[in-house]
Amino acid sequence: MIIREKEPANLEMPFRELDGWITPNEKFYIRAHFPVPKIDLASWRLKVEGAVKSPFRLSLDDLRAMPSTTLPATLECAGNGRVFLVPKVKGTQWELGAVGNAEWTGVSLGEILRQAGVKQNALEVVLEGADSGAISESPKPAGKIHYARSVPLGTALDGVLLALEMNGAPLTPSHGFPLRAIVPGWFGMAAVKWLQRLIVTDQPYNGYYQTVDYAFWQRDATGVALVPITQLQVKASIARPGMNEVVAANSTYKVSGAAWTSEAEITRVEVSADDGATWSEASLGKQTAPNCWQLWEWDWQTPARTGHYILKARATDSRGRIQAMERDPDRGTYEINHCLPIEIEVR
Amino acid sequence: MIIREKEPANLEMPFRELDGWITPNEKFYIRAHFPVPKIDLASWRLKVEGAVKSPFRLSLDDLRAMPSTTLPATLECAGNGRVFLVPKVKGTQWELGAVGNAEWTGVSLGEILRQAGVKQNALEVVLEGADSGAISESPKPAGKIHYARSVPLGTALDGVLLALEMNGAPLTPSHGFPLRAIVPGWFGMAAVKWLQRLIVTDQPYNGYYQTVDYAFWQRDATGVALVPITQLQVKASIARPGMNEVVAANSTYKVSGAAWTSEAEITRVEVSADDGATWSEASLGKQTAPNCWQLWEWDWQTPARTGHYILKARATDSRGRIQAMERDPDRGTYEINHCLPIEIEVR
Repeated sequence: MIIREKEPANLEMPFRELDGWITPNEKFYIRAHFPVPKIDLASWRLKVEGAVKSPFRLSLDDLRAMPSTTLPATLECAGNGRVFLVPKVKGTQWELGAVGNAEWTGVSLGEILRQAGVKQNALEVVLEGADSGAISESPKPAGKIHYARSVPLGTALDGVLLALEMNGAPLTPSHGFPLRAIVPGWFGMAAVKWLQRLIVTDQPYNGYYQTVDYAFWQRDATGVALVPITQLQVKASIARPGMNEVVAANSTYKVSGAAWTSEAEITRVEVSADDGATWSEASLGKQTAPNCWQLWEWDWQTPARTGHYILKARATDSRGRIQAMERDPDRGTYEINHCLPIEIEVR
Repeated sequence: MIIREKEPANLEMPFRELDGWITPNEKFYIRAHFPVPKIDLASWRLKVEGAVKSPFRLSLDDLRAMPSTTLPATLECAGNGRVFLVPKVKGTQWELGAVGNAEWTGVSLGEILRQAGVKQNALEVVLEGADSGAISESPKPAGKIHYARSVPLGTALDGVLLALEMNGAPLTPSHGFPLRAIVPGWFGMAAVKWLQRLIVTDQPYNGYYQTVDYAFWQRDATGVALVPITQLQVKASIARPGMNEVVAANSTYKVSGAAWTSEAEITRVEVSADDGATWSEASLGKQTAPNCWQLWEWDWQTPARTGHYILKARATDSRGRIQAMERDPDRGTYEINHCLPIEIEVR
């Protein structure tokens, strides 16, 4: 794993090592805002409160006794690819590996909310982690805050898993033990780790991590407005060749990678070996599931002429969305899904 | 006037020079985010659009032909007093004079909205100025943005004046010529200058100047959430003595200043000459009006003992709100209404 920050630990997979549809736990990227919180399992409870008829608390045993679901889902950090932004922007300098696909096992958030009885004025559900700390840069609230994100009620009722296991093993402390939210189709910032509290709100939630942080600028009739980052954007990422790799001239090289989107399927991945001048269609892997990446590959007949080449991949999804060639500056430091240049040498 | 920034011009009145209920135009503070925009009066129109049945445009002559209202209102910059914050925070370093009280003459925003026919899903009205520029610090939208703020529909229908005149004279370019919104009882950031567009929205408006800027952190059941700054906070400010003034021992000194609040009246101003240990009640000036400051004074029998003294003033309003002695750090760089220390010397 590549260390991007030592403490709190922020690690990414060398994306060149992508070698299967499921990312092994030890290669799954780790994003943390604060140190791993100390959890006392004996006293640990998941609190369910706010605009509900019956607030209650669940122990880990209560959660384990509930009906369990297993589903695969791809998580991508909303800042994945940030190191490609020039000039450099603030934030963890992820390359390509802050993304992974795992099978998650746990309890449906909707089932818990139905037990609590959501009130008629309910609008959103805040997912609060046990991790906390102080923010250093303004604008910032005073003192320590918890990491927290919200999802709309509709998503909470039918699209969120509270995961106890990852690829069949209990979550590790780095991945949010004992409980992590999984919001399939959303960027990883919604997959709140060390989940300790669910707060049903009757107002839009404007916490730090969906206003000052993890938000972007959306153009509309009023000009431009700050909007929380939510769903994954259509994107193909090249695993091999890796950056600065040396490729043999006059040979066949299997270019490969993964592609993902949200609320749709990947219908096409194209690859260019001439910085976007011409494109060839890659073949898509057979294994697929909703809100999961799809592997792809393309046999590149490498040129006779040695020198530096730029590879790009471009995905299209079943809703007709296609990756942009140029960066949208309103996305700020997030949602880096334009076609990223992989610079290699043919020798 | 004290220059806080040369270009764009940001000027405040030396608050020691407060000498009447109405602030003369040439002493009224000037807050600008961008250079004064060039206005071509021949083509200038106020655009009324968004969630309205009949979008339309008004020329300056159209506005002048409409029924006119005159009302006094106090404007205070939401960062007034910022220079007192230790450690220093970012933003214009206002002392006490970024506040003033003027009579504003113009057209009711509600009347214009009634002519446009607000749709049933209308929620807010965005007030957009003609001034624009680029933001330098992240998080920031790309390119140039206009200065803009919104008010809730209820306020827009019954609490906003679109001012053409200030104290009986046409607005100067620095004060927003040809048209400025006045939102009585709100901090000055809502009093959008060079008003060019009214956009009725059916969604909460999350523009730059009410999210990243001009917002504070409010504690609630979800933890802490970002909230736009809106109404003036109860506050008494000392005009005389000024900071570091030398006052004669064993004499009578008329301590004076102004006090204001929102949606209430000032009911009491107290003054302390011993850094808050004991308080004496000041007498309130006769002249008053809704959403306007009230002048106050107190005859201080200065001590025989020479040395340094700290004066503080503290206001209470008819809703029982009273100024805090200590700064609320969640207010960030805004709403500086705790009791500010005026350090003087008795000689």
